Amino acid sequence: MEPTPQESQNSWSAMTPQERVQAFSELSRTDADELFLSLTAIDQAELIVELAPAQKRSWMRLLAPDDAADLIQALPLEEKSIALSSLDDQTKREVTALLAYAEDDAGGLMNPRYFRLRPEMQVAEAIAYLRAQARGETESVYYAYVLDLEQKLLGTVSFRDLFLASPARLVQEIMKTDLITVPEEMDQEEVSRIFSQTDLMAIPVVDDQGRVKGIVTVDDIMGVVQKEATEDIQKLGGMEALDAPYLKISLRAMIQKRAGWLTILFLGEMFTATAMGHYQNEIAKAVVLALFIPLIISSGGNSGSQASTLMIRAMALREVRLRDWWRVLAREMIVGLSLGLILGVIGMMRILLWPARDTLYGIHYGLIATAVSCSLVGVVLWGSLAGSMLPFVLSKLRFDPASASAPFVATLVDVTGLMIYFTVAHFVLSGTLL
Amino acid sequence: MEPTPQESQNSWSAMTPQERVQAFSELSRTDADELFLSLTAIDQAELIVELAPAQKRSWMRLLAPDDAADLIQALPLEEKSIALSSLDDQTKREVTALLAYAEDDAGGLMNPRYFRLRPEMQVAEAIAYLRAQARGETESVYYAYVLDLEQKLLGTVSFRDLFLASPARLVQEIMKTDLITVPEEMDQEEVSRIFSQTDLMAIPVVDDQGRVKGIVTVDDIMGVVQKEATEDIQKLGGMEALDAPYLKISLRAMIQKRAGWLTILFLGEMFTATAMGHYQNEIAKAVVLALFIPLIISSGGNSGSQASTLMIRAMALREVRLRDWWRVLAREMIVGLSLGLILGVIGMMRILLWPARDTLYGIHYGLIATAVSCSLVGVVLWGSLAGSMLPFVLSKLRFDPASASAPFVATLVDVTGLMIYFTVAHFVLSGTLL
Repeated sequence: MEPTPQESQNSWSAMTPQERVQAFSELSRTDADELFLSLTAIDQAELIVELAPAQKRSWMRLLAPDDAADLIQALPLEEKSIALSSLDDQTKREVTALLAYAEDDAGGLMNPRYFRLRPEMQVAEAIAYLRAQARGETESVYYAYVLDLEQKLLGTVSFRDLFLASPARLVQEIMKTDLITVPEEMDQEEVSRIFSQTDLMAIPVVDDQGRVKGIVTVDDIMGVVQKEATEDIQKLGGMEALDAPYLKISLRAMIQKRAGWLTILFLGEMFTATAMGHYQNEIAKAVVLALFIPLIISSGGNSGSQASTLMIRAMALREVRLRDWWRVLAREMIVGLSLGLILGVIGMMRILLWPARDTLYGIHYGLIATAVSCSLVGVVLWGSLAGSMLPFVLSKLRFDPASASAPFVATLVDVTGLMIYFTVAHFVLSGTLL
Repeated sequence: MEPTPQESQNSWSAMTPQERVQAFSELSRTDADELFLSLTAIDQAELIVELAPAQKRSWMRLLAPDDAADLIQALPLEEKSIALSSLDDQTKREVTALLAYAEDDAGGLMNPRYFRLRPEMQVAEAIAYLRAQARGETESVYYAYVLDLEQKLLGTVSFRDLFLASPARLVQEIMKTDLITVPEEMDQEEVSRIFSQTDLMAIPVVDDQGRVKGIVTVDDIMGVVQKEATEDIQKLGGMEALDAPYLKISLRAMIQKRAGWLTILFLGEMFTATAMGHYQNEIAKAVVLALFIPLIISSGGNSGSQASTLMIRAMALREVRLRDWWRVLAREMIVGLSLGLILGVIGMMRILLWPARDTLYGIHYGLIATAVSCSLVGVVLWGSLAGSMLPFVLSKLRFDPASASAPFVATLVDVTGLMIYFTVAHFVLSGTLL
């Protein structure tokens, strides 16, 4: 049995660059073409730099302009111009234009080649015309776009519509005119949302005059959706997005991407040492209070992490908007209180029913249990509120809400958690232990 | 200007069910059709239950069998049979068959209707045949599948290939025979990976005899990719996946989904109280040690959260496999040590350069600084190793690696972090403070 594309991709990722060139040169031309086209731009770039100049040209010319632009983006600086110069003149112009767009924009994703029709063509004529245009195209596209003389979009026609129409009808009679387009500078995340709402296979990109500049196809977007989710997940883990597979990124780059946030969190967490400094006397008088510090602050962090994660994802999917903040606040008030009560009861039982409670917590174990329970309710409620509101605050300040990672929220909640705990303890234990 | 599909979806999600029925009834039939088809299965289900029986039938019949099955899955139990009975007989049979598949399988995603051709047809004949089949289909499909007499797949032909071929050629001469298929029981996450690697618009689903049962299209998969990412992100936040938008899920269900993990984490975190109990004497002798407990254990949790998040995503994208565990371990050893040293140096400076160091930390502040720094190196290294290995362990034990959430890892690392801290402190401070 032939290896599935997945299997060949897996063994591929395990090979060294030299082994890849070797493996590549042993394939038939058709198989090599297919493998090359199935690789990501990064893998294509790694391969291209290893090849002889004549071979570079032949592989570069296999690519559609948008894919060639992606590959060139992934090449080291000194290789970019070599790769660009190996293209034919028209493609070179198109690729140069694409490279001017930000990689994350609709303009940076789009293919500048698409099928154009005129509204007054007959269906039979249109089919013959498309047949001529379609030869030599490497990307599979299933729509044609009907433009006026100024390149403005009048309608779209799918290959299937043309199939089904009687040959003598005019294109303008069968074209769809309820158009969905995206502007050049639209963020790719926004573009991916429109795709998932519309079931279209391709969407035209237009400039501010309504002129078609190219099309974005759904297969380009599949990768975008995965990439955006990866970025969000890595930010949620409390670091910068790696922008490269884990095993491929250099150790130096990985340390840089992780050290930044880790240091910020560490500096933030230092306030806990300052806060604890203020409660040194209380701890000296009642060492037993120290025992529950990790338990209490981590409960606040955990409930905060749940709330912020929910908000970040809901905002990314546009299920929740900025203006919904008070609805969220109301919900988290109830949920946070319920969760706090659940943990408070468990915490109370843990202390009251512990066999060695007298020796471990002293004769006032009942009061300790009360202080811990009440603190848990307060801390979990506060964690849920802070965790759910932080993404709104970041978003309002034009930061990425995904930066409200579990570690960030935990750090924020730790200091306040300590303050809640020692304040509650002061009230409950004043006159006995404190 | 017409509202974009996004805008109408947004105002839609803000409406009550009654307002929706009202808004819906005010649309022209074409607009209502379009809106209905653009809704998610959950939204369609919410609308359907509000409608009169005759209307239900007309909307149900608009749907392709796979979409009808999704809608029926989303209906409350008592509505399921009503909806099913409103379908025509053939669709009812198809939908019933689809409902037997697990929702997450390729079989549960597939459309049982697809275009079939015989290998010995001429291209012209095939086009005429497809035209007849295509009428009345609601889903946009761009491939036809060439089957033998036993329904086994021989090849695929895109509408475009048929377009380009000369009419007298035979289907078997132009069909592609390097087939990519998926088995019925393949998990949808796996199916989505194959889509993102192949650029296909549709993939046929075959049974163990190689017979085609239906096709999965790329637009169904877009939603899957988003949904899987949402589930993973919510698990990473330390809770069960909600399976519903944040503002739509009932408070009761939300508390249930969050309380489970929060309680487990709380029970795990209780070991910190037990561990601290063992160090009560040390704390009584040197209260200053307690000040740095939150700082040290949270640093371990943060580095662990980074490492586990990276691993979970890399495993979900198949960038890292189970057998790569030792490569990961080697990398995390270096990264963890480097990050630990960075935080250790910052921590050392924080204590040595703090203005009130003598009064706050006592005369032995140099030794305290040493103990804190060394503990940080140990805790961050341990956090990175534990965080990166936990997803491998979970995966090996056939649990979902995404359960190794930031809060889970933090809880795991907190207890050991305390042990590292007090052990290091014992060595460094023995004879002076302890």
